[in-house]
Amino acid sequence: MQKEKVWDKLSTDTEERMNAANELFSDRKVVPSQNGVALLEAVIRAGDRINLEGNNQKQADFLAECLGSCDSEKINNLHMVQSAVPLPIHLDIFDKGIAKKLDFAYGGPMAAKVAEFLREGKLELGAIHTYLELFARYFMDLTPRVSLICAYEGDKDGNLYTGFNTEDTPVIAEATKFRQGIVIAQVNKLVDKVQRVDIPGEWVDAVIESPKPFYLEPLFTRDPANITDTQVLMGMMALKGIYGEYGVQRLNHGIGFFTAAIELLLPTYGNELGLKGKICKHFALNPHPTMIPAIEDGWVESIHSFGGELGMQKYCEARPDIFFIGPDGSMRSNRAYSQTAGHYATDMFIGGTLQIDKYGNSSTATASRVAGFGGAPNMGCDAKGRRHVTDSWLKCGAEFEDQAALLGDMPRGKRLVVQMQETFKEKMDPSFVEKLDAWNLAKNANLDLAPVMIYSDDLTHIVTEEGIAYLAKCRGLEERMAAIRGVAGYTEVGLSADPKETKTLRERGIVKTPEDLGIDRSRANRSMLAAKSVKDLVDCSGGLYEPPARFVNW
Amino acid sequence: MQKEKVWDKLSTDTEERMNAANELFSDRKVVPSQNGVALLEAVIRAGDRINLEGNNQKQADFLAECLGSCDSEKINNLHMVQSAVPLPIHLDIFDKGIAKKLDFAYGGPMAAKVAEFLREGKLELGAIHTYLELFARYFMDLTPRVSLICAYEGDKDGNLYTGFNTEDTPVIAEATKFRQGIVIAQVNKLVDKVQRVDIPGEWVDAVIESPKPFYLEPLFTRDPANITDTQVLMGMMALKGIYGEYGVQRLNHGIGFFTAAIELLLPTYGNELGLKGKICKHFALNPHPTMIPAIEDGWVESIHSFGGELGMQKYCEARPDIFFIGPDGSMRSNRAYSQTAGHYATDMFIGGTLQIDKYGNSSTATASRVAGFGGAPNMGCDAKGRRHVTDSWLKCGAEFEDQAALLGDMPRGKRLVVQMQETFKEKMDPSFVEKLDAWNLAKNANLDLAPVMIYSDDLTHIVTEEGIAYLAKCRGLEERMAAIRGVAGYTEVGLSADPKETKTLRERGIVKTPEDLGIDRSRANRSMLAAKSVKDLVDCSGGLYEPPARFVNW
Repeated sequence: MQKEKVWDKLSTDTEERMNAANELFSDRKVVPSQNGVALLEAVIRAGDRINLEGNNQKQADFLAECLGSCDSEKINNLHMVQSAVPLPIHLDIFDKGIAKKLDFAYGGPMAAKVAEFLREGKLELGAIHTYLELFARYFMDLTPRVSLICAYEGDKDGNLYTGFNTEDTPVIAEATKFRQGIVIAQVNKLVDKVQRVDIPGEWVDAVIESPKPFYLEPLFTRDPANITDTQVLMGMMALKGIYGEYGVQRLNHGIGFFTAAIELLLPTYGNELGLKGKICKHFALNPHPTMIPAIEDGWVESIHSFGGELGMQKYCEARPDIFFIGPDGSMRSNRAYSQTAGHYATDMFIGGTLQIDKYGNSSTATASRVAGFGGAPNMGCDAKGRRHVTDSWLKCGAEFEDQAALLGDMPRGKRLVVQMQETFKEKMDPSFVEKLDAWNLAKNANLDLAPVMIYSDDLTHIVTEEGIAYLAKCRGLEERMAAIRGVAGYTEVGLSADPKETKTLRERGIVKTPEDLGIDRSRANRSMLAAKSVKDLVDCSGGLYEPPARFVNW
Repeated sequence: MQKEKVWDKLSTDTEERMNAANELFSDRKVVPSQNGVALLEAVIRAGDRINLEGNNQKQADFLAECLGSCDSEKINNLHMVQSAVPLPIHLDIFDKGIAKKLDFAYGGPMAAKVAEFLREGKLELGAIHTYLELFARYFMDLTPRVSLICAYEGDKDGNLYTGFNTEDTPVIAEATKFRQGIVIAQVNKLVDKVQRVDIPGEWVDAVIESPKPFYLEPLFTRDPANITDTQVLMGMMALKGIYGEYGVQRLNHGIGFFTAAIELLLPTYGNELGLKGKICKHFALNPHPTMIPAIEDGWVESIHSFGGELGMQKYCEARPDIFFIGPDGSMRSNRAYSQTAGHYATDMFIGGTLQIDKYGNSSTATASRVAGFGGAPNMGCDAKGRRHVTDSWLKCGAEFEDQAALLGDMPRGKRLVVQMQETFKEKMDPSFVEKLDAWNLAKNANLDLAPVMIYSDDLTHIVTEEGIAYLAKCRGLEERMAAIRGVAGYTEVGLSADPKETKTLRERGIVKTPEDLGIDRSRANRSMLAAKSVKDLVDCSGGLYEPPARFVNW
């Protein structure tokens, strides 16, 4: 027989750590903010796997500062597993040697710094994930030992109210606490009774009222004033040639001016095309201010959100038939569930990118920026586990020419995955390239694979100002490449197009120009937008939308 | 300007319904069980979308009986959205005209009845989903109006303890309650204070103590006494030729004797191959009793579970370093998160099927059974949104011959998706067929597509008693079909194999027989199993495993 085994090392260790922090508590689970650093130094060990909550919106910024102030002689070589690293402090923690390894999903403004630290050996990269994939690993091989989360309110028993910006908190807390880990929450306000229990108190070990409210980034706010005529044209093409053509009822919209334009075209051009009630009924979507006119015009039946959006809280609360509102009257977002909906329950993903290669692989990575792709790969892929049928999914599968080579005579649907991009971006950088810059990043950052946001075999349509390429209809890779060249304009890739070949593709409906789609270019301008400014959005909302100061110029 | 719009129809309607039920409550949120039918008649309206909790394990059976006892003159044409329909009452509800439409994931023992009702027009099928996909739609276009859920304990404020069998409850409750819906819970025991808050009281509208504990099915218990020598042989092949070959550390095991055999070979053959610490470290897995010897032998680092398994509760609680155990000392399962882990964080899915066609598409559907596939499509597919790299994923992608036709020169990994099946099943039904019976089901049940569990392009390996077919290594569909023929034995598909072609495939390592793998057939027998009976499993667990009576014969 084997020697007696110990099966509760984790809980014993947790108990020891919590005991070491005992005197830092002022009342039940409450720790005064001035004890924040001491608390982390008591419960964190060198080499620990640590989650620091923070996505592209809410940030456990006070706890991040506390972690950054820990003594790196004691606390070092941490393995950070966290959705995003958008704040300077996130990288400072590596700079100080407190953390060493990073598994994440989104770099945001710190993407260049991540690449720099990788080169300098200050940071070791685990992997770049899509959000839901990272959450998945919290229950597999990347469970956090200690998690630093954030909430609006907390009480002395640890109950948390995360409300509008619930975002990643439930999935982090559950994975950590149920593997004997330690969960520490910063809260904007310590209260006697939380407005609503979003996280049960038993899941939380310590609550700290932070000196100021957590940082929130209005990442999904696009000022209609900045939408260009070209974006209007492309939006009209997408609406008629894809949304209408496939009858897309359930979808996600990413960040960006292209989809903002589409949102603002629904009550105008969308109505003109007679599409209300036929498309855009259900969304997995952050509460985009540019959705207000379409919602007010009765287009939308439901929206489930990954996170909140600064300024949109009151508007969402006043539209409980549309958004997911709790019994207390405030919204609850949930990134894990919304990403799940985005993966399995939507018929289309549409968004922008930085570069598309001649095969149709696309990426926002550049040679010197470890950007990460957030939720895009999860929604911008063909969800192969999907089994339910919708008209648009079935239609795209039916026209997918290469399916027989994969499945024999077995039919299957296909999700619409659309990339919208002008052929040239600012500074005249071409969007279509022979080889993605991601290859150079892979070399520079010593990655196993070039970071691709959307792979060619998942991509079904490209929309540029030149036209739409219907890639699923192509026979084989060569034809797909020809279709891409056909909409790539004056880029190197586009210039290699054979006009005769493009003409044939147009005749077969694989490439469609605005004219092929019956769109009058002279109408494609900003006058088509249902709102032309942030002020228009506020008015349309009846004053419920409260834009952040940086968007207010009246 | 438009006329004044109403944006709170849902909450107004909910309030009206709850008011109608007002006098049925005895104390705060408590409704006596004899008022169960009256409660449902008060809060449910004809045509409602209703969730009735019940997966392949725990069942809200009392509430199902209550629903089945409602007056079909009042309550009819319900649209049921529920994970599974394994109980007779689930179909009775349709028989009585109370429900009309069904969206689900798993039929289990009622699969034939579902097909029958479809033919007779008693039931209209929305779609067959994989679990996570159905959950996804709860946040998109299939949000329940009323959900009938179940828990071990509930208190007067609606707080629920769902513990070991938390399973689907959190995702159902959140989707329903936050879209202004009504959540009714049956509990085994009404208590003053629940052991642990799994569902906050505010998410629950009514709690009913059911007359008897909810039904639990020990679906994942396999008696080692019933494992055959052939299953041992195939298990040895899989361990050496796939688990060991690819170094599979993170995985799921489905239901069945093939994977039960593998679990029981880890402490014997697995150790002999020197694989401990190199494979099978992290699982998304129900607490299979046949995992006990491998856990005790130190193979496993973590297991996150979809649900509980009858008899395994004490064992799991005594192994908190392995399972996900809460602060109260009891386990919390979670199907939504475990399926997410199964989709995005595992390197391999392995399981059995009923039929594989000549192209490699497989299904458990037959002409007269609407079976559904539970979690299999979610885990038995290539997760295209995945971006993190592991050795096994990278290796399978590198040997995937057809990748260049899809992606050009862009490399990508590939998940291992393995089907294990003897070439003939009981009654000598061939496992390999020209055309799946699923085609006939599609015709009989008027489905848009034949229900396929795993599509050919996701399948990477087939293991039969003849050998392993390494499908990802094949060049094109024709060669993949030849490899399938090469392991299909004396089935019609297998008999059409060209021996010369199979020989070439063996030389190229695309087909490997036990001899090619260096496995001595004479050793492939039950003596290799680490436990040969349920009694052995109990002993190995130190008496912690308490098997259900039907498995106890000593």
